[in-house]
Amino acid sequence: LNFADRLIGKVRALGHPLCLGLDPHLAHFPDVFRHGAMAVDAPGTVDAVRGFLWTVLERAAGKVAVVKPQSAFYEALGWRGVRLLEETIAHSRDLGFLIILDAKRGDIGSTAEAYADAYLSDKVPAPVDAITINPYLGLDTLKPFADRCLAYGRGIFTLVKTSNPGSGDFQDITVDDGPFYWKVATALQPLEAMLAGEQTGWSSAGAVVGATYPDDAIKVRELLPRSLFLIPGYGSQGGSAGAAVTSFVPGPAGLEGGVVNSSRALLFPPSVRADSSAADWDTAFDNALDQAIGELATAVGNG
Amino acid sequence: LNFADRLIGKVRALGHPLCLGLDPHLAHFPDVFRHGAMAVDAPGTVDAVRGFLWTVLERAAGKVAVVKPQSAFYEALGWRGVRLLEETIAHSRDLGFLIILDAKRGDIGSTAEAYADAYLSDKVPAPVDAITINPYLGLDTLKPFADRCLAYGRGIFTLVKTSNPGSGDFQDITVDDGPFYWKVATALQPLEAMLAGEQTGWSSAGAVVGATYPDDAIKVRELLPRSLFLIPGYGSQGGSAGAAVTSFVPGPAGLEGGVVNSSRALLFPPSVRADSSAADWDTAFDNALDQAIGELATAVGNG
Repeated sequence: LNFADRLIGKVRALGHPLCLGLDPHLAHFPDVFRHGAMAVDAPGTVDAVRGFLWTVLERAAGKVAVVKPQSAFYEALGWRGVRLLEETIAHSRDLGFLIILDAKRGDIGSTAEAYADAYLSDKVPAPVDAITINPYLGLDTLKPFADRCLAYGRGIFTLVKTSNPGSGDFQDITVDDGPFYWKVATALQPLEAMLAGEQTGWSSAGAVVGATYPDDAIKVRELLPRSLFLIPGYGSQGGSAGAAVTSFVPGPAGLEGGVVNSSRALLFPPSVRADSSAADWDTAFDNALDQAIGELATAVGNG
Repeated sequence: LNFADRLIGKVRALGHPLCLGLDPHLAHFPDVFRHGAMAVDAPGTVDAVRGFLWTVLERAAGKVAVVKPQSAFYEALGWRGVRLLEETIAHSRDLGFLIILDAKRGDIGSTAEAYADAYLSDKVPAPVDAITINPYLGLDTLKPFADRCLAYGRGIFTLVKTSNPGSGDFQDITVDDGPFYWKVATALQPLEAMLAGEQTGWSSAGAVVGATYPDDAIKVRELLPRSLFLIPGYGSQGGSAGAAVTSFVPGPAGLEGGVVNSSRALLFPPSVRADSSAADWDTAFDNALDQAIGELATAVGNG
């Protein structure tokens, strides 16, 4: 089944578009989840991260449609971290989540084929449902990913307008009558058509559009009316729930059009101190999760 | 010691700028190096790849300054592949090679910090000497990598003009008086100054500039006169040795300015058939390596 159809189906059923970002950033770990000094090459470090993530996943199961592991934080733990990424994908799937791997990959020719096979094909033990990719190298470098989406029912989210302060350095350079990222969005239209879902009309050729630039998201929606948007920047980066969904359009269960990610604000709530107990963390996580779900449900008209 | 100083020192000593690309692409493996069906999750697959790569590295040791493992082909083998990447880095270093990891990473904020720490810091067991990175997300996303270069004597190669047929889709879009990639190159000038080496004047803030666009490389050299270039596209992608070094300038041991990569033409020489013997492969590899070294030595004036 088409990825966009699967994702939108789950989002409609839950009534909100929250995506739970899995950023196991060691520096933010509360003491109660730490094992010793957390050195990168200590096996106990990965055990500690697994314990933390499994707690997160099990508390969020059934409440959120999709999780987004951030590859960088797993790669930062070496090969044991990458093994934990595969375990995270498998455990998330067992708990009923869809999985978007945030890896921002991009390369040419048979190297792009290798990345696409590594994450989106059934050739590997732990494929994900969708991956983030970088368009800078050109459309021929996106095609291998799109081909796997068609063959295996997977999705891609191509970087269009990112949420960081410096995203304008290149993405906003004026070309003809608008910023460069309009050119990128326009160039993605054939992929949008190629990967459109039959059930919902939404396309598995998605785009990354930051919540911190809500007016830009409206413009990208004009250019890509059927593409799912992966929207980072809500929560700790400062984007509000309302700003995150400016690109959404009316659907059968409220406004829809993609998913809104929150990572740090949920995993490491500000109320948790280094010496907080496990029960304190549980409560803070549940409260942060319920608050985000409530804000986004309200923003899409289901509050 | 500054990465550019270390790299150019080795290139001068050898008299040629060849970089040996390590692309363990299973589909091209000669039978003699295969173990069974080479399924991704079979431990024997990684053993076969290790056997092949160790043969390659040991035959090239002392003849080539630098190797470039392509992360995608390791990631395609799952976590065991990533463990093999760490082993490849360690074994390459033991054999005297510098190591450029071709990973084309790029992300924002603390995620970029995590990638930079994962590959360029001394916090991990197997750091590399340099990494390829993607500029699309903006200058603030390159800064964490540059900071590690300064702290640990490492290097970056930022994608500017890539070697693939579709590189022009976005990189060549006209902005003001030239293509978009000129804007990227110009924006890298502060990093070039930040990471200049004291011994050679060359900068560890490098750029990726494809051998398949030799005139474009001349223009990027004007904009980045001191940046090391990592030049893909020589060999199997069709760029000649002469085309690969159009951006080089006179130095004490011939023309210099970066390294020229060849992967597939060396690892999988066309003369090797599926049923070739190990001795046949050894001979074909040695011949292909010596030919590439000879062509590049001639191109820089040391033939």
